[in-house]
Amino acid sequence: MVYITRREHFSAAHRLFLPHYEEDQNVDVFGKCSNPNWHGHNYILYVTIKGEPDPETGLVIHLRKVSQLIRKQVLEKVDHKNLNLEVDFLQGKVPTSENIAIGIWDALEQGIKALGASLHSIRLEQSENNIIEYFGN
Amino acid sequence: MVYITRREHFSAAHRLFLPHYEEDQNVDVFGKCSNPNWHGHNYILYVTIKGEPDPETGLVIHLRKVSQLIRKQVLEKVDHKNLNLEVDFLQGKVPTSENIAIGIWDALEQGIKALGASLHSIRLEQSENNIIEYFGN
Amino acid sequence: MVYITRREHFSAAHRLFLPHYEEDQNVDVFGKCSNPNWHGHNYILYVTIKGEPDPETGLVIHLRKVSQLIRKQVLEKVDHKNLNLEVDFLQGKVPTSENIAIGIWDALEQGIKALGASLHSIRLEQSENNIIEYFGN
Amino acid sequence: MVYITRREHFSAAHRLFLPHYEEDQNVDVFGKCSNPNWHGHNYILYVTIKGEPDPETGLVIHLRKVSQLIRKQVLEKVDHKNLNLEVDFLQGKVPTSENIAIGIWDALEQGIKALGASLHSIRLEQSENNIIEYFGN
Amino acid sequence: MVYITRREHFSAAHRLFLPHYEEDQNVDVFGKCSNPNWHGHNYILYVTIKGEPDPETGLVIHLRKVSQLIRKQVLEKVDHKNLNLEVDFLQGKVPTSENIAIGIWDALEQGIKALGASLHSIRLEQSENNIIEYFGN
Amino acid sequence: MVYITRREHFSAAHRLFLPHYEEDQNVDVFGKCSNPNWHGHNYILYVTIKGEPDPETGLVIHLRKVSQLIRKQVLEKVDHKNLNLEVDFLQGKVPTSENIAIGIWDALEQGIKALGASLHSIRLEQSENNIIEYFGN
Repeated sequence: MVYITRREHFSAAHRLFLPHYEEDQNVDVFGKCSNPNWHGHNYILYVTIKGEPDPETGLVIHLRKVSQLIRKQVLEKVDHKNLNLEVDFLQGKVPTSENIAIGIWDALEQGIKALGASLHSIRLEQSENNIIEYFGN
Repeated sequence: MVYITRREHFSAAHRLFLPHYEEDQNVDVFGKCSNPNWHGHNYILYVTIKGEPDPETGLVIHLRKVSQLIRKQVLEKVDHKNLNLEVDFLQGKVPTSENIAIGIWDALEQGIKALGASLHSIRLEQSENNIIEYFGN
Repeated sequence: MVYITRREHFSAAHRLFLPHYEEDQNVDVFGKCSNPNWHGHNYILYVTIKGEPDPETGLVIHLRKVSQLIRKQVLEKVDHKNLNLEVDFLQGKVPTSENIAIGIWDALEQGIKALGASLHSIRLEQSENNIIEYFGN
Repeated sequence: MVYITRREHFSAAHRLFLPHYEEDQNVDVFGKCSNPNWHGHNYILYVTIKGEPDPETGLVIHLRKVSQLIRKQVLEKVDHKNLNLEVDFLQGKVPTSENIAIGIWDALEQGIKALGASLHSIRLEQSENNIIEYFGN
Repeated sequence: MVYITRREHFSAAHRLFLPHYEEDQNVDVFGKCSNPNWHGHNYILYVTIKGEPDPETGLVIHLRKVSQLIRKQVLEKVDHKNLNLEVDFLQGKVPTSENIAIGIWDALEQGIKALGASLHSIRLEQSENNIIEYFGN
Repeated sequence: MVYITRREHFSAAHRLFLPHYEEDQNVDVFGKCSNPNWHGHNYILYVTIKGEPDPETGLVIHLRKVSQLIRKQVLEKVDHKNLNLEVDFLQGKVPTSENIAIGIWDALEQGIKALGASLHSIRLEQSENNIIEYFGN
């Protein structure tokens, strides 16, 4: 089994809050990220796939097709977008890095399988100091 | 003369557009950055100061005071904020990296002088692929 | 289960040696790191925690409390310190990266549990070329 | 158990193709990497070893001996070389990152064991966007 | 005046040698880079442009047009190519980083001027340890 | 004129203080860096040289000789050393980054000239957030 990782990035706005919380409750739980006027990040995304290399080509997967899949299923939906307002796989969720990573996993899992490999992990760096990893459930 | 650089970072939302442009004109000039629902970035800021090292201490400037100045004059105003709506030194300007860098220069120049050195440059990385530098006018 | 990593850094002096070794034995085992006059490093520390995101907030853990815990239990003890002389959790041990990582694990494990999650790993980069990871025992 | 990683790098030329494929078939499968005139990369290599730290020295393994092993078994064979033509452990294989990583694993596994530890993983970054990991079979 | 930098990258093969040198002379002057079987690198390219920001838009230059120019004039010619055999602006030159940087300058200078700004510098990183900068003559 | 930069690194211990200052005066001026028990850093050093590329070889300077010069004149003196106690070119100076950069300039300037080029700048990164540059006087 070999693990292959594709690194991508996107920039987006978001706001962390719960509508039924008071403002000071939102500040307490979500800190500066609860600013009602939005803020944003450059997210770095690592999609890791596992599979057996083809004995002839030495490739686990057709990497250009993976890139196309990530572009269509994830990047076109989140890059230069508002994660609270515009992303189908985040509807009804607080766009924390945890929820974004889980949403990206769900958006990619079937497509990777259709390409003949398995999704292994989603790693999302919201900043160089805060990193999330999700391995499915 | 020795040049000393302090690296800082902040995360913010913005939107690039001119209100008197049609939407397709904004898209033509500003691309994806014109999204009306905002997007955002992790900005990396390098503040470079020049001066003569003190012959006794070997220091160009009291670095803790520089950090406090940058925090008060810049970071508290822009970090986790909306650059179009909430930043005094960007009022009435399109928050391009060019204008943000010039605004940060203006916000720091006097304070650095008051600490006994000169501001040399503001470098602003909006992403790892797009970098702005400003050396004053 | 979602894994969340917080990146921190500290700078410290140390010396690798065993007092009952001859000097050339220390040089053979510890190389340049055995210099009796000390040397030092910028350490980069990654603390990885695992847990279930709260179904309402989408957060695994209250990240500000994690930062405070790391600050109090680790950074205030090691940053700008001498790892051989000044750190309680390294008393009686050679301050190799291995032992520092294990010491940091022991210093954080209970506090993370008290915050409702589990410590997953400690990753310590002594330089960009030398990295240690510890997952508990 | 503690995991220790050594980061190394090498630069090499290669070409991805199968001699019994038509040219357009090679382009379809291997993309720009099938250029008959070669191209090349700076590869970053992470060798991760696991073992128990010696209770006295606090070291998992004698790191200088690991470096010598990697140099002799890997770097001298691949650095500034042509991966299709000049590397013994890649003879008869398409030099994809997958096959290079597996070849490096095979070239190091016994030697690490002889030093009293176990090889855990080979991580190979062909670029900052494409990463391979192999954990043996 | 504001300076704006666009970061790009390409991967290529090359060989440093002079045909009228003996092999040991080539090794003496060019070291491992003289390997007759080629080797290669991931090059990181920084193109820095200077100009006055437009008072209305706050932009120095239309960045998408810069990207297209760099792609057409440079990246399509060098990416996944052999720098000795396939690049028009390197014909008859040893493809050292110095000569590549000068060649890229010459390939871009007029096009940047046509976009209303001035080329300021070409920075080329052949590896993280070897960097070339050229500011024109 | 072409500028060529060589990146190197070293790890060292130091302490910033003036012997005729009271302890609280040292803390006020030098902060945590005044710890009497030492601390240390991984320093990243960029040596930038300028010159005309040789019209035949395309090289500004014989880079292996530059590396040897830096190794002998700088790295062997500072790597895994105590900058207050063991470095000839820092005797009698507080080992601030400013003074280290000036000292490295003085240690290299003549040797670079003897190799047929000119030293342009010394850049010293004490951490990713604190950078010094010196261009001679």
